[in-house]
Amino acid sequence: MRAAPSPEEIRRRNLAVLLRHIHRGGPMSRAVLAERMGLNRSTILALTADLAAAGLVSEELPGQTGKAGRPSLVVRPSEQVYVVALDVGTDRLAVGRVGLGGAVLARSETPRTSGTFDPDEVITALAAMARGMIESAGPGTRCAGVGVAFCGMVRESDGVVRYGPNLGWVDVPIGARLSEELGLKVAVGNNANLGALAERERGVCVDVENLIYLHGDVGVGGGIILGGNLIGGEGGYGGEVGHMIVNPGGRPCACGSRGCLEAEAGELALIAVAGRTDPPGRAVVGAIVEAAARGDARCRDALHQVGDWLGYGVANLVNIFNPSVVVFGGVLREIYLAAAAQVRSRLAVDGLLAVRERVRLRTSALGADATLLGAAELAFTDLLTDPLRAPD
Amino acid sequence: MRAAPSPEEIRRRNLAVLLRHIHRGGPMSRAVLAERMGLNRSTILALTADLAAAGLVSEELPGQTGKAGRPSLVVRPSEQVYVVALDVGTDRLAVGRVGLGGAVLARSETPRTSGTFDPDEVITALAAMARGMIESAGPGTRCAGVGVAFCGMVRESDGVVRYGPNLGWVDVPIGARLSEELGLKVAVGNNANLGALAERERGVCVDVENLIYLHGDVGVGGGIILGGNLIGGEGGYGGEVGHMIVNPGGRPCACGSRGCLEAEAGELALIAVAGRTDPPGRAVVGAIVEAAARGDARCRDALHQVGDWLGYGVANLVNIFNPSVVVFGGVLREIYLAAAAQVRSRLAVDGLLAVRERVRLRTSALGADATLLGAAELAFTDLLTDPLRAPD
Repeated sequence: MRAAPSPEEIRRRNLAVLLRHIHRGGPMSRAVLAERMGLNRSTILALTADLAAAGLVSEELPGQTGKAGRPSLVVRPSEQVYVVALDVGTDRLAVGRVGLGGAVLARSETPRTSGTFDPDEVITALAAMARGMIESAGPGTRCAGVGVAFCGMVRESDGVVRYGPNLGWVDVPIGARLSEELGLKVAVGNNANLGALAERERGVCVDVENLIYLHGDVGVGGGIILGGNLIGGEGGYGGEVGHMIVNPGGRPCACGSRGCLEAEAGELALIAVAGRTDPPGRAVVGAIVEAAARGDARCRDALHQVGDWLGYGVANLVNIFNPSVVVFGGVLREIYLAAAAQVRSRLAVDGLLAVRERVRLRTSALGADATLLGAAELAFTDLLTDPLRAPD
Repeated sequence: MRAAPSPEEIRRRNLAVLLRHIHRGGPMSRAVLAERMGLNRSTILALTADLAAAGLVSEELPGQTGKAGRPSLVVRPSEQVYVVALDVGTDRLAVGRVGLGGAVLARSETPRTSGTFDPDEVITALAAMARGMIESAGPGTRCAGVGVAFCGMVRESDGVVRYGPNLGWVDVPIGARLSEELGLKVAVGNNANLGALAERERGVCVDVENLIYLHGDVGVGGGIILGGNLIGGEGGYGGEVGHMIVNPGGRPCACGSRGCLEAEAGELALIAVAGRTDPPGRAVVGAIVEAAARGDARCRDALHQVGDWLGYGVANLVNIFNPSVVVFGGVLREIYLAAAAQVRSRLAVDGLLAVRERVRLRTSALGADATLLGAAELAFTDLLTDPLRAPD
């Protein structure tokens, strides 16, 4: 246990808090900042002056307010500062340029329905996509970092993919490799963790303190926020809810076990039970949901069965975590919408009253971009933690 | 997001940090405190003077040090300040008087193998036990609070037992009732949460940041500490891992569902599979373990079966939380010791490599007193958060 911070640490922390308010809440007046931060106006003036000198914010007169007296200047995020976000999914690579304040300034993606997932080839493609974003950013701009969302287990400390069962990756130092290619700092995180972060920052869970974000692609990932913080666990691998066994001895899973939540409630189970032969991905899930809605009994039964297992998983997680919101993202969004009755009925039977009475089940507000936007938030972390520190 | 703290807040926080060091680490010199807190000696001198004036610490010369120069005074916790801890289990009521610094100054317990669990009667008994502890504390002493560990779901905010399935309690305001009886502030917590706290404070997990404590009596409770903090969730009910379904459609559980971890791996399952008719409690679990060790095949098979389900639960929790230690407490301590091979084998099959390679499985160091000592830590919370605030 360390003592409380020194005055210089306090100043740096206040700079970070102010910049986060602007990043998260958009342009706001000094008066509002003073109120939200519990500081007086002269302190806010000094802090904004420091951030403006560093090129991170600008100040301007507000529009007509109709109020008497000198109006409070509005502080807004600089349009010159951005990050590059990358998203490695089982069915696509995506890239975005995201400005301070969270606006998506540019984005593009490459579908990967049939390609190889050779790490070298994927890393080369990602580096090219990132370079494209940086080169098109224009003069006078500044890239504050690069963030990568990856569909697998990522070691927090150094951005190594320890295990990506659905891409066949083991111990791939994707962070270091991209950093070398780009000459920039690159942070890597699990895609579901980053989806959770994004939904809390700008999606369906703004200001929610306790939430579970479930992300479906070929696998099922979980991002769990408790007391406002992502749970990481000892190595940063916390939240691997896809490998919670809901059906002992059930369907084989890519991890080598059987009956995992992702084996029973993921898109591969849905495709198999529906009797489809299409390659996995958003398209086939959409097709099954549509067929069920048109009355196809086999597709409807498949959604019911998968929804029931999803319900077991949700009930377990609600009992364990007592969240106020569970968010379904990725293809679980479509699966949940089509099988909500099964999920809710499992929760009603197997959830403890005191925890289920307050939980809300919601679908992702950011849709397919939740993980990409989470990667952007990850890339902004350093800047938002210590705004005036020179980049590494 | 609020701004950083004011100088007065910093002083109060430093007083709290210093007192926590003494409470946790025992008597230590001002020099050591200065080093651990990262403060200079004159600040430490001022802080200890304030705490001494409030009767919370005393200072004395150390024994012969053999070093030249003026020795650094040793700060020790006051022997006059204590809390009362109560533990409501399915098979006993226990009470303890615990001093600042963590020493158990007195303890007693009443077995409840056959009695009623009528809330009025239990609360009256607990109040009498607490009064006995306070009256025997002697003149000049000060009770800093009362803490209660309860084997069920407790609402954090006001100490109401929402649900104690194994005692048949629903919405019992045990905290308010005891507070009225005793004229003292009473804090209430879930017993497994408090067991986790105690094992981290003074047991097998000192300084461990990410741990899961599993407590077995008639039920199975979980206390989960992540990043050094207990997870509470939205209503403080987080950690109800006993009602994670490990075997869909399996044994009926007191919660109304089937196949919950506590229904498959708790003492009732063990007793049933072993074909015993004894009332539940530590005694019968010990008898089954002993019989198995003597070669009784039915008891051995029962331990193997229960151990296998416990292994499913542990593998799921390790995948979800990525803890560095899992601790088995209450009767799960004996069950785990007798069925460790089953638990470890499940974990080897169903745990993801990156998380299972670092996790250690351990038994409680505080044994039957883990939950009681956790209740004491809960009772000390206010004092250790703001040492100079007058008690409510």
